[in-house]
Amino acid sequence: MKNRKLLMIPGPIEFTPEVMRAMGMPTASHVAPNFVEAFGQALERLREVFLCPSGQPFVVAGSGSLAMDMAAANLVEPGDKALVVNTGYFGDRFAAILTRYGAEVTQVRAPAIGDAPPLDEVEAALAEAQFKVMTITHVDTSTAVAADVQGLSALGQRYGTLVVVDGVCSVAGEEMRQEEWGIDLALTASQKAIGVPPGLALVVAGPRAMDVYHQRKTPVLNYYADWTQWLPIMKAYEERRPSYYGTPPVNLIWALNVSLGQILKEGMEARFARHGWLSDALKAGITALGLTQVPVGADRTATTLTAPYYPEGVDATMLKHVGEAGVILAGGLHPEIKAKYFRIGHMGAVSPSDILTTIGAVEHGLAQAGYDFEFGAGLAAAQRVLD
Amino acid sequence: MKNRKLLMIPGPIEFTPEVMRAMGMPTASHVAPNFVEAFGQALERLREVFLCPSGQPFVVAGSGSLAMDMAAANLVEPGDKALVVNTGYFGDRFAAILTRYGAEVTQVRAPAIGDAPPLDEVEAALAEAQFKVMTITHVDTSTAVAADVQGLSALGQRYGTLVVVDGVCSVAGEEMRQEEWGIDLALTASQKAIGVPPGLALVVAGPRAMDVYHQRKTPVLNYYADWTQWLPIMKAYEERRPSYYGTPPVNLIWALNVSLGQILKEGMEARFARHGWLSDALKAGITALGLTQVPVGADRTATTLTAPYYPEGVDATMLKHVGEAGVILAGGLHPEIKAKYFRIGHMGAVSPSDILTTIGAVEHGLAQAGYDFEFGAGLAAAQRVLD
Repeated sequence: MKNRKLLMIPGPIEFTPEVMRAMGMPTASHVAPNFVEAFGQALERLREVFLCPSGQPFVVAGSGSLAMDMAAANLVEPGDKALVVNTGYFGDRFAAILTRYGAEVTQVRAPAIGDAPPLDEVEAALAEAQFKVMTITHVDTSTAVAADVQGLSALGQRYGTLVVVDGVCSVAGEEMRQEEWGIDLALTASQKAIGVPPGLALVVAGPRAMDVYHQRKTPVLNYYADWTQWLPIMKAYEERRPSYYGTPPVNLIWALNVSLGQILKEGMEARFARHGWLSDALKAGITALGLTQVPVGADRTATTLTAPYYPEGVDATMLKHVGEAGVILAGGLHPEIKAKYFRIGHMGAVSPSDILTTIGAVEHGLAQAGYDFEFGAGLAAAQRVLD
Repeated sequence: MKNRKLLMIPGPIEFTPEVMRAMGMPTASHVAPNFVEAFGQALERLREVFLCPSGQPFVVAGSGSLAMDMAAANLVEPGDKALVVNTGYFGDRFAAILTRYGAEVTQVRAPAIGDAPPLDEVEAALAEAQFKVMTITHVDTSTAVAADVQGLSALGQRYGTLVVVDGVCSVAGEEMRQEEWGIDLALTASQKAIGVPPGLALVVAGPRAMDVYHQRKTPVLNYYADWTQWLPIMKAYEERRPSYYGTPPVNLIWALNVSLGQILKEGMEARFARHGWLSDALKAGITALGLTQVPVGADRTATTLTAPYYPEGVDATMLKHVGEAGVILAGGLHPEIKAKYFRIGHMGAVSPSDILTTIGAVEHGLAQAGYDFEFGAGLAAAQRVLD
């Protein structure tokens, strides 16, 4: 009996067959010509996917938290001021990481869960002190709140602070234009919209970020995350020269190169549009079922992720019934509302049929949980957007 | 045309088909029951493979250097004294990492490349100051020198220092008995004798190491490596409770659990014996060809790795000819003698036929390089050991 369910969580996501084949290919030496070529190509392609022609990519074995750690450890020195635009769980994490490396952290918090801090409040904070770095969580995986990265980055540039974007739940799905928007460093993890199994931390640092790193007066406090080791390795592979510092995760990097090739074949504009379209369809379905969402308005919500509240009388046991119908969804993550909502990831290789399958399974779950609604209304509403 | 060559480098090594199938399996959610079970089982099995029933295992996305970093960052506080028993390239690296976290590092160096520091010199150093931690590279991947871990650990215990063993090129191949020998922390990377593609840092910390960590007065300086995050996650998965801090590298952990199962099915004693036997055969073949090795004596040499010097008149271009005969070997790594020697890894799933194939390819390479020797002498000598 086939026991495979559709994975619609905010990472790991469903990966393409070509990516999974690269995962299972006999591992080559890290200096083998076919690996050197793939690694070099993956680095070049990262620049294109991040839309940052002047950026320096880093690909290192680790989770998304290592990518955040790499940003903070390399850019911040003890005593530097950092501003965290906090939209949830991962804003808290960035504040903790920055603090670890000696930064004095100021946070601008959203007025409520599901909201984002208004631009004028962020601007007021920026005007009050000279911040070395400002961090923004593009899509908070815990709430599906999308920050106005373009507006915030423009502010950051105006006030002369480095703009760091945690794009873990956004890069290669949510619209993000690193260079055009003035983002100095963007980061993500492999298992989200980049479309590769978990295990890679991915960073693209622009020229201003690299300058700040090169002008450090103190050593990077984190040894493993220190660009001093990784920069020569990334440069060597991009020049198709084998190099060694630590053994790179060969199969994950092969898979990354395959996935980046597929992303660029679709094209970034088409990819952003598809994510928007499928997100609209899913959200229309959810709304037609009478469910509200954590983000407070349409301009606050991600296209990679949807976070509906359970309706009155329904709780997390509903997700078990959704699973019976063949779809895996994720529970809540934000500590204050954890038990009140669930999360649907829809990024990467996600297709219209995945959206319909998901809504069908949600309808099944709601019905099993005893919720009173017009069966089929979600599917019909989603189908109208897809048509 | 099949273009696959035998990979006989000191990592990544040849992995079993079952391990590669796990790498290519459709990625599950990190809270899926089949993943939770596999992760929990892998943690239990790590204790058995490290022969450390009282140990706390850590499995984190990263390279072997992250495992070294994790040991240093969690055990050392600024001002602590650390003793590095240096047998090559990776001793230098441990000294650099310990220094980064504020340790005052003393090194006991080998009298010459290919040698290890004598026990009495290490004891003299231990007697001179109270060291918080002593690090030992079990097998230096750059030289094939094996340290006397049992003797050194006994010394470390006698002088009340934490014994940390970098087992990157040893664990699950070279004989190592963590608990019995009094090793407080042992570490490795997935792509060596553990038999899993690169991307996992593996650490088993004994009770004294965990006590030292729990009694820290200052925060761990490296955020990503900090056990404060990872310890609850490892405990949760071992209790078969899903948990979240960073998304674990699902496919690599599946592959790890498969490989650990295969290792334990063979049995640790049988595995140590096989590595010794196959190493003896390979080294007999190399010696019969008139090649000398970097390690200065039989008691100094690893069973996972062989590092022969090129004979007079032969250089690294020989490796290209070995490759034409279907076997990939590695060049030198130790900066002072890099161009004068090469390296053959023989660990994990390595078989008698791999040993013979390798020696045959080396003979081909030597002949192509114009070296004058009795063709077939290496194969005959190796075959005698294998019989």
